[in-house]
Amino acid sequence: MTASPEDADRRARVWLSRVVEPGQRGVSELLDEVGAVELMRRIRAGEVPASLARATDSRRMQDRVEEDLAAAATHGIRLLVPTDPEWPTAALHPCVVATRAAGRPDLAPPWALWVRGRGRLDELLDRAVAVIGARAATPYGEHCAAELAFGLAERGWTVVSGGAYGIDGAAHRGALSAGGTTVAFLAGGLDAPYPPGNSRLFERIGENGVLVSEWPPGSTPQRHRFLIRNRLIAAVSAGTVVVEAAARSGTSKTAEDVTKLGRTLMAWPGPVTSALSIGTHELVRGGDARLVCRVEDVLEDVGRIGTDLAPRRRAEPRARDRLDPLARQVLEGVPGRGAVSPEQIAVEAAVPVPEVLRALPTLELAGAVERCEAGWRLPRRRNRRTTA
Amino acid sequence: MTASPEDADRRARVWLSRVVEPGQRGVSELLDEVGAVELMRRIRAGEVPASLARATDSRRMQDRVEEDLAAAATHGIRLLVPTDPEWPTAALHPCVVATRAAGRPDLAPPWALWVRGRGRLDELLDRAVAVIGARAATPYGEHCAAELAFGLAERGWTVVSGGAYGIDGAAHRGALSAGGTTVAFLAGGLDAPYPPGNSRLFERIGENGVLVSEWPPGSTPQRHRFLIRNRLIAAVSAGTVVVEAAARSGTSKTAEDVTKLGRTLMAWPGPVTSALSIGTHELVRGGDARLVCRVEDVLEDVGRIGTDLAPRRRAEPRARDRLDPLARQVLEGVPGRGAVSPEQIAVEAAVPVPEVLRALPTLELAGAVERCEAGWRLPRRRNRRTTA
Repeated sequence: MTASPEDADRRARVWLSRVVEPGQRGVSELLDEVGAVELMRRIRAGEVPASLARATDSRRMQDRVEEDLAAAATHGIRLLVPTDPEWPTAALHPCVVATRAAGRPDLAPPWALWVRGRGRLDELLDRAVAVIGARAATPYGEHCAAELAFGLAERGWTVVSGGAYGIDGAAHRGALSAGGTTVAFLAGGLDAPYPPGNSRLFERIGENGVLVSEWPPGSTPQRHRFLIRNRLIAAVSAGTVVVEAAARSGTSKTAEDVTKLGRTLMAWPGPVTSALSIGTHELVRGGDARLVCRVEDVLEDVGRIGTDLAPRRRAEPRARDRLDPLARQVLEGVPGRGAVSPEQIAVEAAVPVPEVLRALPTLELAGAVERCEAGWRLPRRRNRRTTA
Repeated sequence: MTASPEDADRRARVWLSRVVEPGQRGVSELLDEVGAVELMRRIRAGEVPASLARATDSRRMQDRVEEDLAAAATHGIRLLVPTDPEWPTAALHPCVVATRAAGRPDLAPPWALWVRGRGRLDELLDRAVAVIGARAATPYGEHCAAELAFGLAERGWTVVSGGAYGIDGAAHRGALSAGGTTVAFLAGGLDAPYPPGNSRLFERIGENGVLVSEWPPGSTPQRHRFLIRNRLIAAVSAGTVVVEAAARSGTSKTAEDVTKLGRTLMAWPGPVTSALSIGTHELVRGGDARLVCRVEDVLEDVGRIGTDLAPRRRAEPRARDRLDPLARQVLEGVPGRGAVSPEQIAVEAAVPVPEVLRALPTLELAGAVERCEAGWRLPRRRNRRTTA
């Protein structure tokens, strides 16, 4: 049996998802350069940079692709790779930019995604806000997270969180209670979503939304996996709201991630007498986060797609700066809304049609434009032409 | 009897303080230009702009200077005019600037100040912070105002407020309970400080601090007087902290005053479920106020760089944080339950076996793992691999 190139790539990515932990320096670049199949071969042969060789040393002789796929099938888990239509290309675009332009391997896009549930990931993430916070939350914090998530879901936004006890769980539940959709990014295998105490919640999430993990079935939720998982929550959400956080918590790393990913960080206030509000207040005082107190504040800050085209000035300039001058000029010819033909772009950008045709695939690869039935348009998620 | 020029000026200002309400357009400029004695003469003669003539029409034929001075003496109230050493020239400077440069008569310096209490006003205002807020405050708000004022007073700062019920009263009391000094700016005569329910508080304020008013004894605390009084609180304080405020309360005017006076506005957070925190959160979201959650934040924002800078909050380092990164990584490879071999740890942690073997004794010494017949495990007492 000869596997198609697509199938070979898929299987190589299954292998990578078990052998190479996300965040490993240089992997994302190698993957882009040589592809998953060749990268797998090189890792197995030890033909990789020393740090990657060391990091994969204890696992590289394993081959559990069959077992992992079988376990996934048993548990109703599907594998997504970048060539799949369901792969959330636009939502993960900030990861691509942050890794390539900013040299941040800890913000790299995933090699593959394991997904469980009836929702379609790319569509769920088209309008998404993350609501995250402390596990040891207060009743106040859980109440606020649930109310906020309810309001977001009611307005058609997907609520993204990490499936943990406390704020995360309250956020997922709030979205569900509005009949909305929610996505949980987990730090271990989806065969046994962690924490087990939330298993009924995970089932309900999967009814309309999905559970997502970078790790194959059977993977334990190790501490560093939670940290690296956090980048995906930050990346795929137009904005991240921290509802409660202790003074010493993961919030400073999250704040940095969100900023580097060009997303909006927001923090929820609370009584200063509560230790669980110290972290969120610090985010505001430090200038890292905007203060938000209700769903309207959040929507104002993330900017409503289609109604709020206010320029968003964070990491986007970097994406644009990486383009060559011609590609930038062509990009200027793509309107803020709607799809157009290459000929229309040529007129608008004052670039000859053949050059437009040459530039468009480059722009598409860079995630700056997307092809659709009607022609070419800016990615749905946000208006990329506001980057100037 | 011939009065000295100084005495004539003083008596003219007593007259002005009864006849001309603060905030009247053009008065401050006239006062600077022609002096109090000549201004009094012109107002009496009706030789002033129409608006001022109209505003003083019902009072300009009064002359209650003797009675006012007598009533003041009876109640232990002294009069301050700009030539007095106790006049808070530096503290009121922002009023001078705002009136002349920004054309804001509602921010003008007072014509005179009536003062009651043993403190010396100019010295008290040398290091002053205002703590203000809602009268119908919550227990949370009063607690926070008192704690903040206590901390400020303890560090030698004078707490300025408006003597009202709720936040103001809590702030004055907090300062007093630290043995500190506090100043109350009132909107009526000091012979009967308003509100009467705070009369015991006013007595205690006067023991080390002072009560201050622009209006002579017998003046009632009219509504507009509270508003115009607020500018003095804002002006004389290096910064103003709003602890609780309802939505659409007087805070927007205060915010504008503080900004126009070149002072720092700060707002105290609270539960979003409290109506009395909506106003303070709005100040932060609107960019009018800095969020402050403790006395150190306030001192950082009013600036006294080098002495009052807030240290960053740090929690105690956890045991696992004292381990080196490799040891931490190896520890992640030890399962929550059961014992495993070094080889199994190597696979799980993605660390080469020789390095696992080197790290395990260190972890054992740190009490993070223990050796047993079946290999290595987490100590029985509790699961040290706390998840993110």
